[in-house]
Amino acid sequence: MFIDADFLLDTPQAKTLFHKFAEALPIIDYHSHLDPAAIADNKQFANIAQLWLDGDHYKWRAMRTNGVPERLCSGAAPDREKFDAWAAVVPRLLRNPLYHWTHLELRRPFGITGILFSPKTADEVWERTSAMLQSGKFGALDILKKMNVEAVCTTDDPCDDLAAHSRHAASGDPVKLCPTFRPDKARAIGQTQAWNTWVSRLEQAAGMKITDLNSFKKAIADRHDFFAQNKCKLSDHSLEAFDEESLSDAAAAEIFNSARNGIVVDKQNAARFSNYLLDFLAGLDAAKGWVRQLHVGALRNPNGAAMSELGPDTGFDAIADDNCVAPLSRILDRSAQKGTLPRTIIYNLNPRDSAAFAVLCGSFQDGIVAGKMQYGAAWWFLDQMDGITRHLETLSQLGTLSRFVGMLTDSRSLLSYTRHEYFRRILCRILGRDMVQGLIPDDIDTVGALVADVSYNNAKQYFNF
Amino acid sequence: MFIDADFLLDTPQAKTLFHKFAEALPIIDYHSHLDPAAIADNKQFANIAQLWLDGDHYKWRAMRTNGVPERLCSGAAPDREKFDAWAAVVPRLLRNPLYHWTHLELRRPFGITGILFSPKTADEVWERTSAMLQSGKFGALDILKKMNVEAVCTTDDPCDDLAAHSRHAASGDPVKLCPTFRPDKARAIGQTQAWNTWVSRLEQAAGMKITDLNSFKKAIADRHDFFAQNKCKLSDHSLEAFDEESLSDAAAAEIFNSARNGIVVDKQNAARFSNYLLDFLAGLDAAKGWVRQLHVGALRNPNGAAMSELGPDTGFDAIADDNCVAPLSRILDRSAQKGTLPRTIIYNLNPRDSAAFAVLCGSFQDGIVAGKMQYGAAWWFLDQMDGITRHLETLSQLGTLSRFVGMLTDSRSLLSYTRHEYFRRILCRILGRDMVQGLIPDDIDTVGALVADVSYNNAKQYFNF
Amino acid sequence: MFIDADFLLDTPQAKTLFHKFAEALPIIDYHSHLDPAAIADNKQFANIAQLWLDGDHYKWRAMRTNGVPERLCSGAAPDREKFDAWAAVVPRLLRNPLYHWTHLELRRPFGITGILFSPKTADEVWERTSAMLQSGKFGALDILKKMNVEAVCTTDDPCDDLAAHSRHAASGDPVKLCPTFRPDKARAIGQTQAWNTWVSRLEQAAGMKITDLNSFKKAIADRHDFFAQNKCKLSDHSLEAFDEESLSDAAAAEIFNSARNGIVVDKQNAARFSNYLLDFLAGLDAAKGWVRQLHVGALRNPNGAAMSELGPDTGFDAIADDNCVAPLSRILDRSAQKGTLPRTIIYNLNPRDSAAFAVLCGSFQDGIVAGKMQYGAAWWFLDQMDGITRHLETLSQLGTLSRFVGMLTDSRSLLSYTRHEYFRRILCRILGRDMVQGLIPDDIDTVGALVADVSYNNAKQYFNF
Repeated sequence: MFIDADFLLDTPQAKTLFHKFAEALPIIDYHSHLDPAAIADNKQFANIAQLWLDGDHYKWRAMRTNGVPERLCSGAAPDREKFDAWAAVVPRLLRNPLYHWTHLELRRPFGITGILFSPKTADEVWERTSAMLQSGKFGALDILKKMNVEAVCTTDDPCDDLAAHSRHAASGDPVKLCPTFRPDKARAIGQTQAWNTWVSRLEQAAGMKITDLNSFKKAIADRHDFFAQNKCKLSDHSLEAFDEESLSDAAAAEIFNSARNGIVVDKQNAARFSNYLLDFLAGLDAAKGWVRQLHVGALRNPNGAAMSELGPDTGFDAIADDNCVAPLSRILDRSAQKGTLPRTIIYNLNPRDSAAFAVLCGSFQDGIVAGKMQYGAAWWFLDQMDGITRHLETLSQLGTLSRFVGMLTDSRSLLSYTRHEYFRRILCRILGRDMVQGLIPDDIDTVGALVADVSYNNAKQYFNF
Repeated sequence: MFIDADFLLDTPQAKTLFHKFAEALPIIDYHSHLDPAAIADNKQFANIAQLWLDGDHYKWRAMRTNGVPERLCSGAAPDREKFDAWAAVVPRLLRNPLYHWTHLELRRPFGITGILFSPKTADEVWERTSAMLQSGKFGALDILKKMNVEAVCTTDDPCDDLAAHSRHAASGDPVKLCPTFRPDKARAIGQTQAWNTWVSRLEQAAGMKITDLNSFKKAIADRHDFFAQNKCKLSDHSLEAFDEESLSDAAAAEIFNSARNGIVVDKQNAARFSNYLLDFLAGLDAAKGWVRQLHVGALRNPNGAAMSELGPDTGFDAIADDNCVAPLSRILDRSAQKGTLPRTIIYNLNPRDSAAFAVLCGSFQDGIVAGKMQYGAAWWFLDQMDGITRHLETLSQLGTLSRFVGMLTDSRSLLSYTRHEYFRRILCRILGRDMVQGLIPDDIDTVGALVADVSYNNAKQYFNF
Repeated sequence: MFIDADFLLDTPQAKTLFHKFAEALPIIDYHSHLDPAAIADNKQFANIAQLWLDGDHYKWRAMRTNGVPERLCSGAAPDREKFDAWAAVVPRLLRNPLYHWTHLELRRPFGITGILFSPKTADEVWERTSAMLQSGKFGALDILKKMNVEAVCTTDDPCDDLAAHSRHAASGDPVKLCPTFRPDKARAIGQTQAWNTWVSRLEQAAGMKITDLNSFKKAIADRHDFFAQNKCKLSDHSLEAFDEESLSDAAAAEIFNSARNGIVVDKQNAARFSNYLLDFLAGLDAAKGWVRQLHVGALRNPNGAAMSELGPDTGFDAIADDNCVAPLSRILDRSAQKGTLPRTIIYNLNPRDSAAFAVLCGSFQDGIVAGKMQYGAAWWFLDQMDGITRHLETLSQLGTLSRFVGMLTDSRSLLSYTRHEYFRRILCRILGRDMVQGLIPDDIDTVGALVADVSYNNAKQYFNF
């Protein structure tokens, strides 16, 4: 049977590893784009189209590739029409991760097994899932619990008031909901107008005047403190324009003042100002013992027409091919030299750079914190069977697999928690094959401990959950 | 037996997929470098050396690597000497695609099976193939028919008179022979002298004076029309020097005039003029519903001594490592913003960029034409078992395999049609393994339909053959 | 059993290939960083920590990643403490090459099998190996003999007096010990002060005044001659900063004079001066029939704090992502055009460039020397199971596997000779699988000959040992 209990587990060892050591472990989803309010308020959904298709740019992208017009993707078509459009596309997606995810998501949390999703089975799926979703027991928070989620980190602007997070904390619910400090807009000084708007928001959020670089940094540090008070343990940064150099305080102050006067900052100075702030932010993270996440390799919004019409995060992004190893090594080095290099996870979107990034992490391990520098899990386009397999191979051969903090969803969809299951199955598949082939000792407890560490224990310890 | 009927088909499913769904389908070879006159005139060959070794730079390259002097590669040695040199090299080529191709080519169209090609079997092969080739039934067109070729597209300069194509069309032969519009020389303004020579040829071909940029574009558009009248359905472009920007009409006109006055155009302006023309040509293709092919990643003629002695296309090219994702995305974007983005196939020669290119295609799908943007088949150096397998994996995980228009030969050799068989076997091998492992449903009709689509149906529909 | 006699050999064919055709062949280690004095003097070791951990930055790196402080890596801790720290780390290294190497190294030369190295077995390993090492029969040269090493090439500065090499030669020992000419410091004119210091050393070594570019080149050529008299057959060059252009003699002389006057040479001129010298050195190598090795793709010392504290070659290097195909092609081309292109091996550290480099080699094959241009074995970070497998796949599909000169250690550790065994096992594994699957003929003698060629015969012939 396709996608049964032993899906992907093609050796006896893999089956035992998964069912005995991985399957029952809770999920620590340390990076997601879920809406914290939906979780805090246990948001209800009328039907599976709302869960599956609203905001899911992975699916929209696949639908467009299969000739589905925008009205049925991100557009205003009725839920059932969108659902039927998706049902018609799924049978075209053999070998694509969406084919696996879709059937895994029907299996959990809905318990729908034994069918292939297609126009023929669409009615049945719609009716069964609608009944469940309308039962009042399939709200956002309910789904997290059904998926055995112990902790989830959202991604938040430093100006955010974290109201949903504190509302959830006040509820005493056992699912941990933590914010993540993502100050990308502070660094985006090259889009000078939007940056000034954001600085004004920051003034509001921090409740202080921002008159110069120092007060700007002070306001950011205040928000960093505020996030920490709200259980934040991670920061996150998207790196997209590269320069090897940073700036002196004086040079940064000059660029800051110029930008505040509305003068557009050129590309090189913008990249260097970004580096300067990254150095500053690393110090904040290190002081609080946070984990810093760096996302590298996205080419955002290459399709200008789609961007104008639909805005960002709608399924039109791509993979960049900048040479970023040297600039990234300098970012790490500047902090390391000052003793302010936080525990860091580097996620990479261009698989051509996997080896270089995995090795670069190894060049900044400090001999104090085991697994301090992490080559992060296969991300976005690479979050699929081949991508995950290659990531684990690269990490194994060039680093230390047993120290890996494991999977995350990086998702906007509550149903994406099956991706943790998918990851664990692939991990067990690889290790089971290794055991059969004599590449690692055929000792189920030794290898099982590795599986449990990578699936759960390492993240628990690394992030102090 | 090596290379028997089930070559590469290592599961029962793969065997059924190939033999039931793929093997008998005709070939649509939508990109080749075959000589149209040879096909139109059913050119005869005296021996297999002429078919195998004349102009085949893949084999020359392998021969040089094995210490065979130029005289026996591209040189003037007698056919039989060249053939014997090749026979001595083949046993050294285990694991190289030439080893598979050579034996597949003996099997089809010659029906020679059960032997390994080597000096020991050279006489037998020479005699048996000579007898067939001299029978009058193994001309160029005969071979296409033996290989079940339904349509073949050649690659042609816009100045070409397409005489062979129209001669073939007039013959009423059922094999379709279509030209492809390849205006690379129009864009190569940086090689200013050669470019001017070509502009003069264009004046002749178009029968008009070219006095400025507008008349240059008019002449190109006229040739585009002429090609369309001769059943052309595709254009083709080699992209080799990259710049993110295009030019205004005025700036392009200025560069055009300067070049026409013999002033050498610098690298940046040449790249931008090339972009400007690509934008213009995209409009022509889009208006006629043609498919545009972009070939990216070749480093041509790095060996200057060989280039001086033997000229281009003699087996000395290599793979470039320019950062081309951003410039390429801008090429697509400029046309998309004007609504003139044609259906497009992007072929990539540097496998490090496979993921980025496959994803970039997805960023320009329009939700109207299913599979509009195609990440093209493994090309040139990558047209081998590992390269094809990886291409299919990348396309599967990052795009939609079922929409793929499939294989082409890109070859100068009539015997290369076995590469379509090779591709289909690899495709069935991959899918058969997936079925056995539960990665896709073990439903032979569903998967068989995918095989037939990728092997034939998709190309038939995409190119309107 | 983990790591038994048939380790990695998962088909009957692979077992036969290895045991019958590869296992007994001597080792030609044509590139290493071993200390020639240790070999010449048959240096003794008190315990396995000295052999395993002194200078082995591979292990230090893994230890740091697992939280082991520097004192126990490169530091001054007692041998037994370091050994115990390593024993505690090894069980964390499943899937890392160090896990395989460690157990292979216990097996050969120590004959310790049937145990997994860990704190539980540390005492036993320490005692058994200490007994052997202190027996007087496990000196450096003894170990080479136990590992069946026929020839080993060290890596030496042109100023080196090669005293150890001549001492060893005079001893009449059958193990060949050859120097390698590595003039990187001659090219490093951008680090102008260090370069001047080196030029002074060169004056001493060559016994002549260096007053201008010509006398500089003369002194280098003299040392080249001296190395040749001491059985040198190879040069070696690390390429790290790239520029497509070289210099005229006059321009090079000007830069030389300027640098000798202490004026720091800028990045571009330094890269071009390096190219100029590479061209000159190629001529020297070609004239003597030496093999030239080019190492491409290292990012050295990105961690400035570690560099300050511990110096180079301590396990902090990384992989660079420069675009180097065009500059490298120009280096080959300039020599080819002058007819002074030596036999050349290109080693690549960034796996993203494997295909481009393998193909580039093919573009400079000369049709005279079979396998003249070699795409070198998986290097440094890539010297592991996945890296070796991919290298062999790339070489097979894009070049001629049967001409490959095979494995080297590139190691600072005498125990690394098991890497030749590791390589041979992987080679046999791949070929055995191919035979079973019908990808190559299932003819054990044919394939066995290929195995023997790649394991030993090709190197013997290529380097004239």
